[in-house]
Amino acid sequence: MASKHLIEYENASPEVRAVYDDIKATRQVEQVNNFWKALAQHPATLARTWSSLKEVMAPGALDPLTKELIYLAVSITNNCDYCMASHGAAARKAGMDEAMFGELMAVIGMANETNRLANGYRVPVDAALRDDDPGSAH
Amino acid sequence: MASKHLIEYENASPEVRAVYDDIKATRQVEQVNNFWKALAQHPATLARTWSSLKEVMAPGALDPLTKELIYLAVSITNNCDYCMASHGAAARKAGMDEAMFGELMAVIGMANETNRLANGYRVPVDAALRDDDPGSAH
Amino acid sequence: MASKHLIEYENASPEVRAVYDDIKATRQVEQVNNFWKALAQHPATLARTWSSLKEVMAPGALDPLTKELIYLAVSITNNCDYCMASHGAAARKAGMDEAMFGELMAVIGMANETNRLANGYRVPVDAALRDDDPGSAH
Amino acid sequence: MASKHLIEYENASPEVRAVYDDIKATRQVEQVNNFWKALAQHPATLARTWSSLKEVMAPGALDPLTKELIYLAVSITNNCDYCMASHGAAARKAGMDEAMFGELMAVIGMANETNRLANGYRVPVDAALRDDDPGSAH
Amino acid sequence: MASKHLIEYENASPEVRAVYDDIKATRQVEQVNNFWKALAQHPATLARTWSSLKEVMAPGALDPLTKELIYLAVSITNNCDYCMASHGAAARKAGMDEAMFGELMAVIGMANETNRLANGYRVPVDAALRDDDPGSAH
Amino acid sequence: MASKHLIEYENASPEVRAVYDDIKATRQVEQVNNFWKALAQHPATLARTWSSLKEVMAPGALDPLTKELIYLAVSITNNCDYCMASHGAAARKAGMDEAMFGELMAVIGMANETNRLANGYRVPVDAALRDDDPGSAH
Repeated sequence: MASKHLIEYENASPEVRAVYDDIKATRQVEQVNNFWKALAQHPATLARTWSSLKEVMAPGALDPLTKELIYLAVSITNNCDYCMASHGAAARKAGMDEAMFGELMAVIGMANETNRLANGYRVPVDAALRDDDPGSAH
Repeated sequence: MASKHLIEYENASPEVRAVYDDIKATRQVEQVNNFWKALAQHPATLARTWSSLKEVMAPGALDPLTKELIYLAVSITNNCDYCMASHGAAARKAGMDEAMFGELMAVIGMANETNRLANGYRVPVDAALRDDDPGSAH
Repeated sequence: MASKHLIEYENASPEVRAVYDDIKATRQVEQVNNFWKALAQHPATLARTWSSLKEVMAPGALDPLTKELIYLAVSITNNCDYCMASHGAAARKAGMDEAMFGELMAVIGMANETNRLANGYRVPVDAALRDDDPGSAH
Repeated sequence: MASKHLIEYENASPEVRAVYDDIKATRQVEQVNNFWKALAQHPATLARTWSSLKEVMAPGALDPLTKELIYLAVSITNNCDYCMASHGAAARKAGMDEAMFGELMAVIGMANETNRLANGYRVPVDAALRDDDPGSAH
Repeated sequence: MASKHLIEYENASPEVRAVYDDIKATRQVEQVNNFWKALAQHPATLARTWSSLKEVMAPGALDPLTKELIYLAVSITNNCDYCMASHGAAARKAGMDEAMFGELMAVIGMANETNRLANGYRVPVDAALRDDDPGSAH
Repeated sequence: MASKHLIEYENASPEVRAVYDDIKATRQVEQVNNFWKALAQHPATLARTWSSLKEVMAPGALDPLTKELIYLAVSITNNCDYCMASHGAAARKAGMDEAMFGELMAVIGMANETNRLANGYRVPVDAALRDDDPGSAH
């Protein structure tokens, strides 16, 4: 499935190859995914997106599995086909088993349902919730 | 902030009170949130939503904090004000600290960005990803 | 709550007044809603949106109440505050009672939940469904 | 198109078979759709989703056709391929003809357009609309 | 790829043919796109959508390329496959080159990211921004 | 409207102050917006988001006004209140006048409408469009 729109390593500029090399080293994989080969059409976006993702997905206060579950939850809510495939694989590699995937799906489903119930019933935020909301500046 | 649209315990039917009592016992709180008082306008929705949520959010293969982080990730992606307030509070009660919240936000942001990059560049799913996709039946 | 951004009848051009007059006559109301007063900042958008809406919402194969319920379902899914208020009022005026609103909300909630379940489980479309899909050209 | 991810009746546990039997009896069909076969990977989600959907879609203050039109409106707004196929078929089975489908689409299109017009023009909710908003507690 | 759901010129009513003829004359093309052949199933929607689009996309205060870039940005954010294909082609025809497309994608990605950062951190609108907001009536 | 959740310059760490200083110098403003003061709660997100935004919004193949119009189109489609306010102001500062804003809104509205028409009618992509799609690798 070669494509003029996916930049393969052998056709890539040194700048793009450097990013590919870093992805391969960081993830310990032999090939970069199509996502990166597509972004390579715009090298600045490739470099910026990879360096951002590398920083954001590194282990920190949240472990890598939790971060992948969150990534997958957003991707499923937004219905991004490619992202469901790639982050589904990444989540399994980080330890997600079928029971976890089942519960993840159940939570995503309920959240999408209750988000609309809260909006449609125009529920006013409880005074107690308003006070200690994260990031709230009201 | 009394409202004819929020059903308070003293004005609730026995059916609604039974749900309120179960919420209070399960969560060990003295008051149910406005969300439930709004749903009580349609008692079947109140009962069904509570019993679904109680089942889905119970500890299982995923722990309560992870489930709340996923719930919050969906609610922020969907821009549901009430849900950000209530599940932000629930996540903190389950152990989310500021560092975790900061990383959660960073992952949500990146996922929403790369979802559009993958869509807009119309990236074809890698053969390797297609094969072991969770839930895939292709 | 006068505002320079809402064009009141007395400050409106003849072109805008003609649209306001048609809205008032068609809906048998004494005032146009703020939505129209805001669109009047761009008279071409005001005229086009009103004539489209008038055509689309007229009784036809679907009755006015059904059309308003559909409008409300989209507006709640998209979380449009203004639209929930205006089409909630329009639906009630067309006959929506509290029991109908409760069932509408329940359907909207379930649809938003199962949309994500179907996406996240990447359910393949059944052969039988594919064949007689409305509008399908595959 | 057999798939390890779709649980067929002959491979299903008694718990899953009981749900399949209830779906077939309730809908008077010989086969359950792929949606249910996919959810069967997580039997608790299968059972909960079916019992919720059965309750929500039963005739009540709104008739089955109206409920299917609303379901379809949400699914089209969210761009859920599977759900458009399955609920398109369900709506036609409940009586939707081509003229109704055409008007449904027209309303969905207008609602998605005016939702953004109302948001982008930041239209303030009319005082009169605010007072009698359904579910409003302000 | 003939389809009973796509109305070809030779099978079209005079009313539909008139719209097709105007599309072909306006855009100086020999064939109308599938989008219009699908809408032709509901001639009122075909006529209204074409006349609206023709008015909205005409050169005005914004040039045609800018309008196509905006159209593409919305379509990518909403993940509409058909629209990405058709407006991607239209944008290139209007002058979008690969460098422009790369920057367009980068802006769309950042906007989708920061939209969630602003929502999730619940950032209060600055007093200075509130005052001169376009369309604001607060 | 001081808030413990908005980090003011005088309370900021040297790392955060360096970002604030760069924002002020780049944009030639005396104060950073609340958005940055909120992100400062997580300094890594503040630094990464600013450096990404600075790179992406710099003049290039697309001029600053076009980039701001695209940003605003995404923000209105996603219904992000803060972003509509801040990028509305940025667009005006970059040269957007009322006529341009009116046309921008009209395009956004039409795109959101036709996105759903294309999805709901499940329009197959024209062979001619498929061939030269930007970023397509099919």
